Amino acid sequence: MKKSDIRTFGIIGGDKRQLFLAKSISDSCYDVLLGGFDSLESYGSLSLCNVKKAISESDALIFPLPSIRTDGSLNTPFSNENILLDGDDIEIILKKPVFTTMKSRFLKAYPRLSDGEIFDYGARDDFAILNALPTAEGAIECAMREYEGTISGSKCLVTGFGRIGKILARKLVLLGANVTVSARKPSDLAYVKALGYNALNTENLRTVKRFDIVFNTIPRLIFDRELLMNTDTNTLIIDLASLPGGVDFDTAEKLGIYAVRALSLPGKCAPKTAGEIIKTTVFDIIKEVYR
Amino acid sequence: MKKSDIRTFGIIGGDKRQLFLAKSISDSCYDVLLGGFDSLESYGSLSLCNVKKAISESDALIFPLPSIRTDGSLNTPFSNENILLDGDDIEIILKKPVFTTMKSRFLKAYPRLSDGEIFDYGARDDFAILNALPTAEGAIECAMREYEGTISGSKCLVTGFGRIGKILARKLVLLGANVTVSARKPSDLAYVKALGYNALNTENLRTVKRFDIVFNTIPRLIFDRELLMNTDTNTLIIDLASLPGGVDFDTAEKLGIYAVRALSLPGKCAPKTAGEIIKTTVFDIIKEVYR
Amino acid sequence: MKKSDIRTFGIIGGDKRQLFLAKSISDSCYDVLLGGFDSLESYGSLSLCNVKKAISESDALIFPLPSIRTDGSLNTPFSNENILLDGDDIEIILKKPVFTTMKSRFLKAYPRLSDGEIFDYGARDDFAILNALPTAEGAIECAMREYEGTISGSKCLVTGFGRIGKILARKLVLLGANVTVSARKPSDLAYVKALGYNALNTENLRTVKRFDIVFNTIPRLIFDRELLMNTDTNTLIIDLASLPGGVDFDTAEKLGIYAVRALSLPGKCAPKTAGEIIKTTVFDIIKEVYR
Amino acid sequence: MKKSDIRTFGIIGGDKRQLFLAKSISDSCYDVLLGGFDSLESYGSLSLCNVKKAISESDALIFPLPSIRTDGSLNTPFSNENILLDGDDIEIILKKPVFTTMKSRFLKAYPRLSDGEIFDYGARDDFAILNALPTAEGAIECAMREYEGTISGSKCLVTGFGRIGKILARKLVLLGANVTVSARKPSDLAYVKALGYNALNTENLRTVKRFDIVFNTIPRLIFDRELLMNTDTNTLIIDLASLPGGVDFDTAEKLGIYAVRALSLPGKCAPKTAGEIIKTTVFDIIKEVYR
Repeated sequence: MKKSDIRTFGIIGGDKRQLFLAKSISDSCYDVLLGGFDSLESYGSLSLCNVKKAISESDALIFPLPSIRTDGSLNTPFSNENILLDGDDIEIILKKPVFTTMKSRFLKAYPRLSDGEIFDYGARDDFAILNALPTAEGAIECAMREYEGTISGSKCLVTGFGRIGKILARKLVLLGANVTVSARKPSDLAYVKALGYNALNTENLRTVKRFDIVFNTIPRLIFDRELLMNTDTNTLIIDLASLPGGVDFDTAEKLGIYAVRALSLPGKCAPKTAGEIIKTTVFDIIKEVYR
Repeated sequence: MKKSDIRTFGIIGGDKRQLFLAKSISDSCYDVLLGGFDSLESYGSLSLCNVKKAISESDALIFPLPSIRTDGSLNTPFSNENILLDGDDIEIILKKPVFTTMKSRFLKAYPRLSDGEIFDYGARDDFAILNALPTAEGAIECAMREYEGTISGSKCLVTGFGRIGKILARKLVLLGANVTVSARKPSDLAYVKALGYNALNTENLRTVKRFDIVFNTIPRLIFDRELLMNTDTNTLIIDLASLPGGVDFDTAEKLGIYAVRALSLPGKCAPKTAGEIIKTTVFDIIKEVYR
Repeated sequence: MKKSDIRTFGIIGGDKRQLFLAKSISDSCYDVLLGGFDSLESYGSLSLCNVKKAISESDALIFPLPSIRTDGSLNTPFSNENILLDGDDIEIILKKPVFTTMKSRFLKAYPRLSDGEIFDYGARDDFAILNALPTAEGAIECAMREYEGTISGSKCLVTGFGRIGKILARKLVLLGANVTVSARKPSDLAYVKALGYNALNTENLRTVKRFDIVFNTIPRLIFDRELLMNTDTNTLIIDLASLPGGVDFDTAEKLGIYAVRALSLPGKCAPKTAGEIIKTTVFDIIKEVYR
Repeated sequence: MKKSDIRTFGIIGGDKRQLFLAKSISDSCYDVLLGGFDSLESYGSLSLCNVKKAISESDALIFPLPSIRTDGSLNTPFSNENILLDGDDIEIILKKPVFTTMKSRFLKAYPRLSDGEIFDYGARDDFAILNALPTAEGAIECAMREYEGTISGSKCLVTGFGRIGKILARKLVLLGANVTVSARKPSDLAYVKALGYNALNTENLRTVKRFDIVFNTIPRLIFDRELLMNTDTNTLIIDLASLPGGVDFDTAEKLGIYAVRALSLPGKCAPKTAGEIIKTTVFDIIKEVYR
């Protein structure tokens, strides 16, 4: 198969992100078939059809994030039906490149597809990095909504200097916040200083005082009972870490500390950008594989 | 009267801003009496009392924004009562400096107070400039909520380069937007260019194409029927201009252009900052007048 | 005369700025004659000629900054000759629009030209504002060269919040400096705070302590003997104010404070940008006058 | 040995950086002996002495960058003498922690010291990262000096997204440049996009057109004859890569492309910051090793 053999993409289920993905692919002069969006009457000039047709009449297939539900049915929030792939669908899919997420769950539900060309765009590092931008903006939107002052002039702590921490700290400081970043690795701490933030070693985080807003990006229990007892009660905590998260929410509530969970921000806050990121990643895979 | 004679402030009515104002004044080691907040049971360590006591036992009085309702009653959203100042109140108030807003409406309701020392902090230029910061952040929060992409990478138009335009354009460009500013005065247009924005002459604004988000700050009808007909339908318009505003909302709706009104942002989005700005302005007046 | 009657510009004398001006005009598809640059052998594809020819064969004339020397001769640093305009030149010039600087000095030397169309682009507000950008960058270049630390992390004071102060403070803070701005007008001080700088009232400037670098933009003696005696000796002072300047340099030297004068920065540090600004201003005048 | 046993540091040779290092250590309430600075008469209140005394009367020793000359003599630009360590020096040094650079060259000259506690602060990752900040500022100073326009509005290409590229790109974009970054790793390219720069794949760099300034940070021959032939002649190239560098300077000159080498920028442009970075790194080592 060559790159140029792919002319029509079948987009099978998903939320607003996949609609923007469809639009973005269409704007690049490809045809798009949207399957599993039957609660929509129309979507611009794009073709809505049933899943079977979208599968059979396209050259490549894109499944959403998450790709399927726990019962194996397709993730089709814009459809009232519960759609499962049948044997015929599988045979057709096996002949086409498939771009999906949560590959292992997908293949567990449809093991026959292991023989196909399945690419997990959701597992790629570049996909995660690109999504750090809408995540950081979503975190700022959340802070603007929940915090009663302005970001400008506020004292912010960002725990963790991974993908999200890097982008978030930058945006906060440019909005006029006084930004402290906690990290563990000496090289990360050196970057934190060289980029002009205040630096804290996450290992030594015993108290969190005089911060207006804390953004946790570390995916393990950082704000446990002990640390929360040494956190100012008027500090707002926004937990960006994927589940189970980095904050003991029960204890926070008991102590009167306002803590909010902010998850899946790209899809919620910026589905257009999130859809464009899916397109970029899928197209990058195609360029790598089908030169 | 000397600056140092003012030890206790009576804060008479108002919303969350006045509560943060009270806290901020108290943090500067003054006493504060909160009158007209009887639906609150407590507010930290601050004294809640009735309006009469707050008036009589304080050295200076601060009324909120707006100061009074159209029926002349005090603006006390945290009270279930309809409170009017009586003759006794007036006589006491006449002996104290009064910091209020909408002075002419206030004096129309209580003409006897014309003999007192009434300062309109809401009418001051520095008050308006300081509030441009929470207004600009509120506008960005609104854009983040309503726009389906990220601000980073978006194409924004800010019409007007007054107080709000200046601060808003700066924040947008630092968030990664591509920013165009329209202005009329040659000196403003020169600043727009020198600060690195794209410049448009408001006079020549016949079409608004290829912008994702438009922020109008000009308080006259800029987006009239004609301009809206030459605006992309997928452009989000956020109107920050005080009423009657700068957008023909009916026509926008008919044309399928999504336009939102965003008013009184400091109080809604950042009451803490808004309260601190009232404090700064009142204290600046005191320093100017009672050296 | 109409805008479109001007097809050929005669550029009469000047330094590198006028060469970049010539290139920029030529890039906009006009013809250019360069007069008074005879120490150059060539300049790209542009025509070098003598002043007489440049005057007679062009539709409009541009004189440099400064326009003429104190002896009335043309300001032609790229020529070894001392060139004066004669009666024939004057007669021809009278028929053409002339864009110059220091108009009164120019007309004093050539009073007959008072009957002509003489536009002083150097006196325009927008010209000064546009030049604040290369001035601010030149000031930063100067600070980088003279200061032994990095701008990032340094403590800077900018005295004055006019054209240059506005642009300079912004660039410094974005480079990571901790920026304080001194101003006098309450509205300027409010902008200083709203934009996130530390604010000082110039009136109250009795000591200058704990600053690494001071940029003075106020064109009167701010750093007099008294203030210098209350300035840290390891503070670098960069005086951007036009002559006689804002610093008592003799006293500074005696006290061991390192102070440098930085004048005419656009021409020295960024002649390309400075030339493009002349073009923008001349073209704006043409658009205003010859619609 | 414990952290608190170190009270006096001997600083043995070096340039301005070591002087600022000495001042910074002294400001942290340690004693400092400066050895090998005999062309100075004094340095504030710090003690200048001969190398022997600085070695014997201190608790820890800091050698400069580079530590020694190729002939094995100490690197003492502030001394007129050629100083070598003798057997007695060596015996004393063996009892003390030594912080140096270019450890292998140092031990080759003084092999007996292999039995001592020798820490190479110059080889640490955090040292290199912290120095990326003064390097980036030095690169910008160089660009401001050499480029005839302003950085604001210029089109810049940064090749490489390592330590220096990361910090430099950020500063350039905040100064108002239009910034493109070239990188090779997909994750780096994703960061480049998420941070809002234009992205180029270094692998595909066949032409360099329409850039005003190019900053090369990649330490291999990127601008070879072929690429230079496809580079605009009015592009300024600043090569930040350590020797042999990333630009074929001979070919550049023949083609009329202005290329400059900018090396050792921290020491040249910001010795104060460079000295403070040495202190930070040495103190971090002490905290790690002598808890």
